[in-house]
Amino acid sequence: MDGTVELIDQTRLPDELVVLRVEDVPTLVDAIRRLAVRGAPAIGVAGGFGVVLALREPDYAAAVRSLRNARPTAVNLARMVDRVAAHAADGFEAALAEAIAIRDEEIAASQRMGERGAELVEELVGNGRVRAMTICNTGGLASVERGTALAVIQALHEAGRLEEALVLETRPLLQGARLTTWELQRLGAPYRLVIDAAASSLLARGAADVVVTGADRVAANGDTANKIGTFGLALGARHADVPFVVVAPESTLDADTPTGADIEIEDRGANEIVSLKGVSIAPSGTAAANPAFDVTPCELITALVTERRVVRLAEGERL
Amino acid sequence: MDGTVELIDQTRLPDELVVLRVEDVPTLVDAIRRLAVRGAPAIGVAGGFGVVLALREPDYAAAVRSLRNARPTAVNLARMVDRVAAHAADGFEAALAEAIAIRDEEIAASQRMGERGAELVEELVGNGRVRAMTICNTGGLASVERGTALAVIQALHEAGRLEEALVLETRPLLQGARLTTWELQRLGAPYRLVIDAAASSLLARGAADVVVTGADRVAANGDTANKIGTFGLALGARHADVPFVVVAPESTLDADTPTGADIEIEDRGANEIVSLKGVSIAPSGTAAANPAFDVTPCELITALVTERRVVRLAEGERL
Repeated sequence: MDGTVELIDQTRLPDELVVLRVEDVPTLVDAIRRLAVRGAPAIGVAGGFGVVLALREPDYAAAVRSLRNARPTAVNLARMVDRVAAHAADGFEAALAEAIAIRDEEIAASQRMGERGAELVEELVGNGRVRAMTICNTGGLASVERGTALAVIQALHEAGRLEEALVLETRPLLQGARLTTWELQRLGAPYRLVIDAAASSLLARGAADVVVTGADRVAANGDTANKIGTFGLALGARHADVPFVVVAPESTLDADTPTGADIEIEDRGANEIVSLKGVSIAPSGTAAANPAFDVTPCELITALVTERRVVRLAEGERL
Repeated sequence: MDGTVELIDQTRLPDELVVLRVEDVPTLVDAIRRLAVRGAPAIGVAGGFGVVLALREPDYAAAVRSLRNARPTAVNLARMVDRVAAHAADGFEAALAEAIAIRDEEIAASQRMGERGAELVEELVGNGRVRAMTICNTGGLASVERGTALAVIQALHEAGRLEEALVLETRPLLQGARLTTWELQRLGAPYRLVIDAAASSLLARGAADVVVTGADRVAANGDTANKIGTFGLALGARHADVPFVVVAPESTLDADTPTGADIEIEDRGANEIVSLKGVSIAPSGTAAANPAFDVTPCELITALVTERRVVRLAEGERL
């Protein structure tokens, strides 16, 4: 590490591939807040390296606090900030080693989640070609390397078993339309884009064999916070009797949060909703509710896949 | 009628209020297809006047056929075209009288639906102030005068009983964000805009007392085709135990369609999804599934309100 953290600016995709070189904590906090870097594992890794940058800041403690609180819902950010901060007293090299260890753990976890998830999909829906629906972006951009739910889709594709991915566009910031499509195109994987509101109906009409999503925080009972729309997608999957699989690293599991009701849901304000790429799409003066996440109750989740295990939440298994 | 039909171009709202003066059938068919005029009652009324215009076309029969087939899902269009066409042999004045009668019936129905719906809401959720969630645009723009579901919200507002309307933006064409907000602003009614994917979660968190929607076609068993997203909204309402009310004129009921499975669902192609107001929001070459409607099974519909009756579909009542 030469004292900078390099990040793809996800707000610019798919139009431009811009790499941000971040040299201080305020810039990194801003990148996390405006979603230039996003995805639970990715902001965890970024937060870890952020603590290393904080060692150069005039007020280390304030810098670490600002990092830790940049976004509230994903557990990974606060957790990885704390992990690296626990080594800060041992100096720059020790903190850097811990941040690198976190990154490497997420890379390894990503590979394992893809494999385990693909095995589970085969068990759930057979070994034919699979149509998999997913929401938001859970690939390499959201994580490091292969991602979480999209790692499963990638593993299916590499095994020649992906019929198509059905990608929910994921309003308001269109991470599905902008980022997941971009990753699938680079993988050469077949996909179609659909609006979020079409998910339940497409599932009822038999358009997908399985739903796979990521997670921002999994509570101790298995309730899962994830991108807004995930809960409705789970209701649609249940109605259609389609398996609903959450894919997340152990680092996203939070034993200190008893249930989904205890998870703080970030509201990101009206601007994200009333305009798009600078174009106004509602009358001026329009107020909005903009919860960025929702909570899917554990009983709607067929299984949670981590790098270590498969937990059949709907059958009553617990973490 | 001076030989022209005047329509507000709904594709230009809320940015501009543009009135189209339509003098021939091909222009009217184009306006219906591109949703310059939209909403089941509104395209029924427009289709009726279209038959009057068709009497001036060189090939009357072909003009009527093109009108009748301009959009497939809403029953009103074909039905009202047929009604006026049945008077065409009696000449221009007879056809015009029938088209005007259809318009006047829809205006009267709209007033009655608003009143009946507001009464039903009081019965279902009490006489306090009401938070009502709705999808798409079902107001005066979609109908004539007051509309269907939005007529209920207007009646609640006029009675001082509307706490707020929660308006789903209604991707892909944003009829909620663009049109319903615009109508509510003109009424001075309180509202907040939300993305479609947030509906189920907001309902689960107790944000609304009732859901009201319109319909494009109600099958004989009560299954209801409406804007894509309505079915998912009904699943969310059921999960949260919030009453789900469909408001539609008798002209939208179709005894000739036994169940929702028999309703043709229009797919409007990828362009509506991959770009917005001319701005690309997905990588080029992205394919999409774009069903414009979905079907809500009758058992998820607490009640259907028409200008004549209230049918408790979820309790097993039938049309």
